[in-house]
Amino acid sequence: MRFVYSPLHLGHDIRTQTILGVQVAANEVAERAETIRSTLLADRGFEAVVPATHGPEPITAVHDPGLLRFLEEAWDEAVRQGHPYDFLAPETITNAAATEGMPASARREATKIDGRAGYWALDTSTYILEGTYAAARAAVDVALTTVDLVLGGERAAYGLCRPPGHHAARGMYGGFCYFNNAAIAAEAVARATGEHVSILDVDFHHGNGTEQIFWRRGDVLYVSLHAHPDRQYPYLLGWEDEGGEGDGAGANLNIPLPAGTDDEAYLAALDRGLARIADEPGDVVVVSLGFDTYGKDPIGDFALTTPVYHECGRRTAALGKRLVILQEGGYHVGDLGENARAWLRGAEGRRYQRSRAG
Amino acid sequence: MRFVYSPLHLGHDIRTQTILGVQVAANEVAERAETIRSTLLADRGFEAVVPATHGPEPITAVHDPGLLRFLEEAWDEAVRQGHPYDFLAPETITNAAATEGMPASARREATKIDGRAGYWALDTSTYILEGTYAAARAAVDVALTTVDLVLGGERAAYGLCRPPGHHAARGMYGGFCYFNNAAIAAEAVARATGEHVSILDVDFHHGNGTEQIFWRRGDVLYVSLHAHPDRQYPYLLGWEDEGGEGDGAGANLNIPLPAGTDDEAYLAALDRGLARIADEPGDVVVVSLGFDTYGKDPIGDFALTTPVYHECGRRTAALGKRLVILQEGGYHVGDLGENARAWLRGAEGRRYQRSRAG
Repeated sequence: MRFVYSPLHLGHDIRTQTILGVQVAANEVAERAETIRSTLLADRGFEAVVPATHGPEPITAVHDPGLLRFLEEAWDEAVRQGHPYDFLAPETITNAAATEGMPASARREATKIDGRAGYWALDTSTYILEGTYAAARAAVDVALTTVDLVLGGERAAYGLCRPPGHHAARGMYGGFCYFNNAAIAAEAVARATGEHVSILDVDFHHGNGTEQIFWRRGDVLYVSLHAHPDRQYPYLLGWEDEGGEGDGAGANLNIPLPAGTDDEAYLAALDRGLARIADEPGDVVVVSLGFDTYGKDPIGDFALTTPVYHECGRRTAALGKRLVILQEGGYHVGDLGENARAWLRGAEGRRYQRSRAG
Repeated sequence: MRFVYSPLHLGHDIRTQTILGVQVAANEVAERAETIRSTLLADRGFEAVVPATHGPEPITAVHDPGLLRFLEEAWDEAVRQGHPYDFLAPETITNAAATEGMPASARREATKIDGRAGYWALDTSTYILEGTYAAARAAVDVALTTVDLVLGGERAAYGLCRPPGHHAARGMYGGFCYFNNAAIAAEAVARATGEHVSILDVDFHHGNGTEQIFWRRGDVLYVSLHAHPDRQYPYLLGWEDEGGEGDGAGANLNIPLPAGTDDEAYLAALDRGLARIADEPGDVVVVSLGFDTYGKDPIGDFALTTPVYHECGRRTAALGKRLVILQEGGYHVGDLGENARAWLRGAEGRRYQRSRAG
């Protein structure tokens, strides 16, 4: 399988994050993408591809142009304003309740960079560094180049996106995500083919951004398996009664899962999601692939094992549709490469054996 | 002048806060109220009063009952869920953009306590501790007892509220504020008298919560002098074109001021605000009194001096209306007591001379 990788993610060199008000060691680190890359390169079945540069149009097809502009300007503006840290996190975030009952125009984007960040941010843990914008744009290029490979005839291709994307909404970044790589890819497929597109999101967390972006769209099906948001991030969306609205009614399927979900229970849930996708017209599936479902993941509370990822990949490929597979989360760096390799080999119908060095 | 004080604020013993993603020493500390109290008690012109307990009804008259319930339950629930810190700050905050275009019901309140906090919070710097709820309820009782004194015939009375209140919106806490003491007091006055009430907010920061609560109310005038929100917290509201809507059109006056605002410029702005209040019917003014406008304040960027607070108090009293004066911010602990004493003596038409121990 060909996989797309850009070294520009290395400039997004996150070392800490602020969770529950406390600055702690980061989970979404550069080593994540590096270990996947080296594990795949050690397997002769994989070939690395350099992403082609795509312009901003596919981004603004799903995102507010103001979000793109903010992310492009944020770090330079922070430096110009004398921001005191080597990362930018907001001071306050525009909670919907802060301006409830007031016109939408009441919610302003301040000039001061930390206030401005709070206009666009969901949390204080998604830092903006000097290299963040270039990395986020490169991740979009990785996703779009993966789309190009699949639309060009590949049965499946993998985009090693970092930073991830599925928490980013139309006008909001957060959850370690800046641009929604999967949503941008799905929209690009929809526009190129004129057909329905399905998104299968198997990251541990609900892809609130993807759901919001396609909430009223009937031509983009979103299916997500995830930790129940009543107990896990992102908390605000992902309940199972969220089915979409308008043209999108019925085109959103959330399958929230309990703590401790194991291989067997997960495969049963996956089959349910795949059955929905099998019923959907269209030949392309965008996969938001996360490995924070892994039993050893430091964030997640599921109990999946490496072999089940191979089976997940196999069953997803058995849909008979073409696969645009994009990396989302997964924070057990030690086994991340092997987990990705297992899934991707499964998606190609190849056997999987754990590598000795793994 | 009689002033109302409760020692319950001491249980809200904030030592740190998370600003821009970093945990730093707190500004809104217990010593603030203690130094004001001791400075006033050293002046024979002041007499301390214990607050009377008021029920929850005056709170839910301006706040979402869900906010009251959350604040009441939050700490015990955090303990029950094994929250890892001795304070509760949210992991993520429900940015309005996260569910833009989706029904209001899509924004959920999770069971997990840090997710639940993010439903109600504006920022990560407003911690909930074991004693926070009792302190916040006591601050409301302080405010309502101050109202009782004024409605009972006092020309002016002072409520030494801590925590402060003016950033708290109908369904949101933040900016070191939990319940909006001034809004609760103004609503209590409006209900008791049936007359118009004016709120004069002279805290350094815009009282976004007060503005939002009374946005569509014509019987409660909100006048605020504050740092321009384009450069200073709370960033999201406080621009001068915000005039209110519906019945409230014209009943909101924002006077945003530039960095470096000095005594002279401030008094000119105050006169503008007081002129608007003079035109308003009703005999009672609720003052949101902050001293973060002080030149030495660690947060503010104005240049006011202690003597001007005496003049501000004098001019406010010269309206000829009765004053419910409630403490908001002000973080230069060393001079905070003298600044309060100067303002309050001014409001009584008494001369002010800095105390030697000040």
